[in-house]
Amino acid sequence: MAFFNPFPQSRRIYVPGKIYPDLKVSMREITLDDPKCPVLPVYDTSGPYGDPEKTIDVNRGLEKLRAPWIRERLEKDGRHKTQMEYAKEGVITREMEYVAIRENQKMDELFGGKGDEITPEFVRSEIAAGRAIIPSNVNHPECEPMIIGRNFLTKINSNIGNSAVASSIEKEVEKMVWSVHWGADTVMDLSTGKDIHETREWILRNSPVPIGTVPMYQALEKVNGIADDLTWEVFRDTLIEQAEQGVDYFTIHAGLLLRFVPLALKRTTGIVSRGGSIIARWCMVHNEESFLYTHFEEICDILAKYDVCVSLGDGLRPGSTADANDEAQFAELDTLGELTEIAWKKGVQVIIEGPGHVPMHRIRENMERQEEKCHNAPFYTLGPLTTDIAPGYDHITSAIGAAMIGWYGTAMLCYVTPKEHLGLPDRDDVREGVVTYKLAAHAADLAKGHFAAHFRDDALSRARFDFRWNDQFALSLDPDRAMDYHDETLPGNGAKSSHFCSMCGPKFCSMRISRDIQEYVKTGKLSHQ
Amino acid sequence: MAFFNPFPQSRRIYVPGKIYPDLKVSMREITLDDPKCPVLPVYDTSGPYGDPEKTIDVNRGLEKLRAPWIRERLEKDGRHKTQMEYAKEGVITREMEYVAIRENQKMDELFGGKGDEITPEFVRSEIAAGRAIIPSNVNHPECEPMIIGRNFLTKINSNIGNSAVASSIEKEVEKMVWSVHWGADTVMDLSTGKDIHETREWILRNSPVPIGTVPMYQALEKVNGIADDLTWEVFRDTLIEQAEQGVDYFTIHAGLLLRFVPLALKRTTGIVSRGGSIIARWCMVHNEESFLYTHFEEICDILAKYDVCVSLGDGLRPGSTADANDEAQFAELDTLGELTEIAWKKGVQVIIEGPGHVPMHRIRENMERQEEKCHNAPFYTLGPLTTDIAPGYDHITSAIGAAMIGWYGTAMLCYVTPKEHLGLPDRDDVREGVVTYKLAAHAADLAKGHFAAHFRDDALSRARFDFRWNDQFALSLDPDRAMDYHDETLPGNGAKSSHFCSMCGPKFCSMRISRDIQEYVKTGKLSHQ
Repeated sequence: MAFFNPFPQSRRIYVPGKIYPDLKVSMREITLDDPKCPVLPVYDTSGPYGDPEKTIDVNRGLEKLRAPWIRERLEKDGRHKTQMEYAKEGVITREMEYVAIRENQKMDELFGGKGDEITPEFVRSEIAAGRAIIPSNVNHPECEPMIIGRNFLTKINSNIGNSAVASSIEKEVEKMVWSVHWGADTVMDLSTGKDIHETREWILRNSPVPIGTVPMYQALEKVNGIADDLTWEVFRDTLIEQAEQGVDYFTIHAGLLLRFVPLALKRTTGIVSRGGSIIARWCMVHNEESFLYTHFEEICDILAKYDVCVSLGDGLRPGSTADANDEAQFAELDTLGELTEIAWKKGVQVIIEGPGHVPMHRIRENMERQEEKCHNAPFYTLGPLTTDIAPGYDHITSAIGAAMIGWYGTAMLCYVTPKEHLGLPDRDDVREGVVTYKLAAHAADLAKGHFAAHFRDDALSRARFDFRWNDQFALSLDPDRAMDYHDETLPGNGAKSSHFCSMCGPKFCSMRISRDIQEYVKTGKLSHQ
Repeated sequence: MAFFNPFPQSRRIYVPGKIYPDLKVSMREITLDDPKCPVLPVYDTSGPYGDPEKTIDVNRGLEKLRAPWIRERLEKDGRHKTQMEYAKEGVITREMEYVAIRENQKMDELFGGKGDEITPEFVRSEIAAGRAIIPSNVNHPECEPMIIGRNFLTKINSNIGNSAVASSIEKEVEKMVWSVHWGADTVMDLSTGKDIHETREWILRNSPVPIGTVPMYQALEKVNGIADDLTWEVFRDTLIEQAEQGVDYFTIHAGLLLRFVPLALKRTTGIVSRGGSIIARWCMVHNEESFLYTHFEEICDILAKYDVCVSLGDGLRPGSTADANDEAQFAELDTLGELTEIAWKKGVQVIIEGPGHVPMHRIRENMERQEEKCHNAPFYTLGPLTTDIAPGYDHITSAIGAAMIGWYGTAMLCYVTPKEHLGLPDRDDVREGVVTYKLAAHAADLAKGHFAAHFRDDALSRARFDFRWNDQFALSLDPDRAMDYHDETLPGNGAKSSHFCSMCGPKFCSMRISRDIQEYVKTGKLSHQ
């Protein structure tokens, strides 16, 4: 599969566990011409696609990494337990040790842990407390464990999925692989068109990252797109179907209650969540409370059986800065807090979805209220977009809000592409969206002080000051683009060791002059004069 | 000149003054199919280029709008006074009323002022206090007045200029026009190659926005690029030459003192300012205090004569997140505070330059320290970039920091293009950089509550909810891109009134469903079933 160029100066490594020595935690190791840091391992979401030794056949699917772990536990316990149940019992699972190692990126080994590195026991305690989740459906053994929680690296989600207007199965699988190549930590399949079951099956069997869905979309297809014909039974059967396939988390808009709908209809942009608008219509037309709310305990029973996480959807998120932090939005958020406690009692892992469109000065209130009302369950936001006037650049308006809310404690950021509000993203848009959100998440990690975050920045900055151009490219989130941009004006290998670039030229390169001064202070000799 | 497409549904309007009825403050008025807001005037930096009635000949230069104002004052006062001198004397100049009207964008007339609109007297008082500047060299009469200060709209600067490696005069003039078309409030000409005087002359005579320079670059050319041969006299003559030409503000790195250089040499990335590294080398090699510092009073005497503003440069800004907020940076910032008081005594308008590379959690300290040490002179920052690992996307890593520091009170944001650290920006990079910074500045204006900011967001959101696609495009910062992205999957005029786009398709369009529910509540009738 030649979906992408391999990353330069990179090789795949596998790190064993200490509790479970058979673990093979995958990372990408970048080789550098830097005595302070000859190799730098980095977090790697690409799974087997990032290992040139592996032969991948999309018709057969990926290796079932977790199958023996899951089987062993089933044999011992007689039923599937969720990661939360194990955590509460004090058990550190293989998944937990895997993510602990993965979070540290070997920085504890290479640079010393200082006590703030991530331990397996810390992972367990965060999951037990509901402050973090490991999405890991027992029927998605291809998935490499990862953790979502405020005390871990900020994660990003990439949305794929065909709509009735465009796209195909092959394209969606390719978009998933493309997303994880660039760094998507989870992928949501938001397909709404035909072949929804088959598309999902292909994606799941070939995905090394957790897959999320909004089951309402398929339920609606089952009633021929007539929202008013939806029933609890159709929805329930859809949940079971998708849980059986291996979906790792479901977005369910169970907090959107009948009495909240009139609050939302008064707004500038009404209801802007697809799932939210469907259930709102159902509630209003039937003049009945949402079946997602009235049947929430049964929903949790199904989810617990497979260890599917619930992502409590914000059907009333604001779709414009004018609607931010309004009564409708917060009424629903408070309800999500009630539902969180119900899910936890059933052992179901929970994350909470958040906005949306929010001007910068109103972002923090979202985080604080979410933590308070939802008892510190991880927050998972879409942006937020900090202004409404830049369609075509909404990956950027939203990256501003995303970086900020990530710093404040949001655990996962749902990407926004340049096509937001305008059309279905293509391959280039997905790359732009994923890389933009990687940098926003990384900015958040630096700001919140994640143990492993700053080493890569520092290595890149040293490479920059040393004019090691190839090392700069290799350490970049998107080496292909960095190299292409550099080479537009200064192509060729000679320019890769030049002590300048075309931005300032040789005479005005401040870093070159800066090095000359250092040299002068050391040796008393002047160069370049 | 067919440098760009005119903005859709737009026409140029001119608003007269009340104190000075002969003023013609230019704005762009967007016509909308919105009963709440049939026309929306927006801030317009494009000058005569945005008025189809005007014939422009770049060989003759633009109309000298301010020439009679300047002449009248000179005749009355017998010498040129700066805007700050007038402000302190209690005089409201034409420039001051112009910017007051410009800042309000007619929102006071259209939607009512609520007392928080900008008055000419408020403009005067802010300039008198040093909290704002109007860059307006008496020899740049082509310039339309604009104001830079924390209590006004956040401004953005676009850098142009050839380097020794690439570019030409024609290209630089075109980049200036292109920059102001997309919304640059000021343009810095950072040319360093040959023909530096002639390039600047072309830019000045054709620029409707203030032009800034770093005079050190030309001074260095005059001594054949040998930094050690620089002298106060060469620098002084360069200042006079550029002031005579009409440059509106000079970046001068006068706060970089000899004793600070060793602090900077210890850093991960040393000195990353071009002007800073040149003067640092001069200081070290001569073992002498910087002539920019020792001759600062004479510099101010020259600037006052032409009303050139000084932008006190941050030669020791951090070039990596590792170096953020360090001793070198803050030692220089404190010195800029001393220099501010000297300049103010001479009647010179002052802004202070700021970083650079700063992780999010350390941004606020920059703003707070700047305000305290520099006595509330306006802050003008480059980004800051919030992570080092995304070359190729540094317009985005820096837009995050820029939006935040703008919200905290920074008055002007210097744009960063996708080519930052990699090469000289081309036309596409300039557009990408300017629009990205416009959205960051606008996000800051919403967050800090500028009176006129939210009307455009609200108009666009209403257009979105009403499926008025053409109005959405017209209200966008970059209508061309919004339209192109939309039309990639749904071209043609029919799709411009469709109640969906290709992102979700008709059945899953939440806004469409939302409107159906509204309709149902009103009429009891169901649609789309």
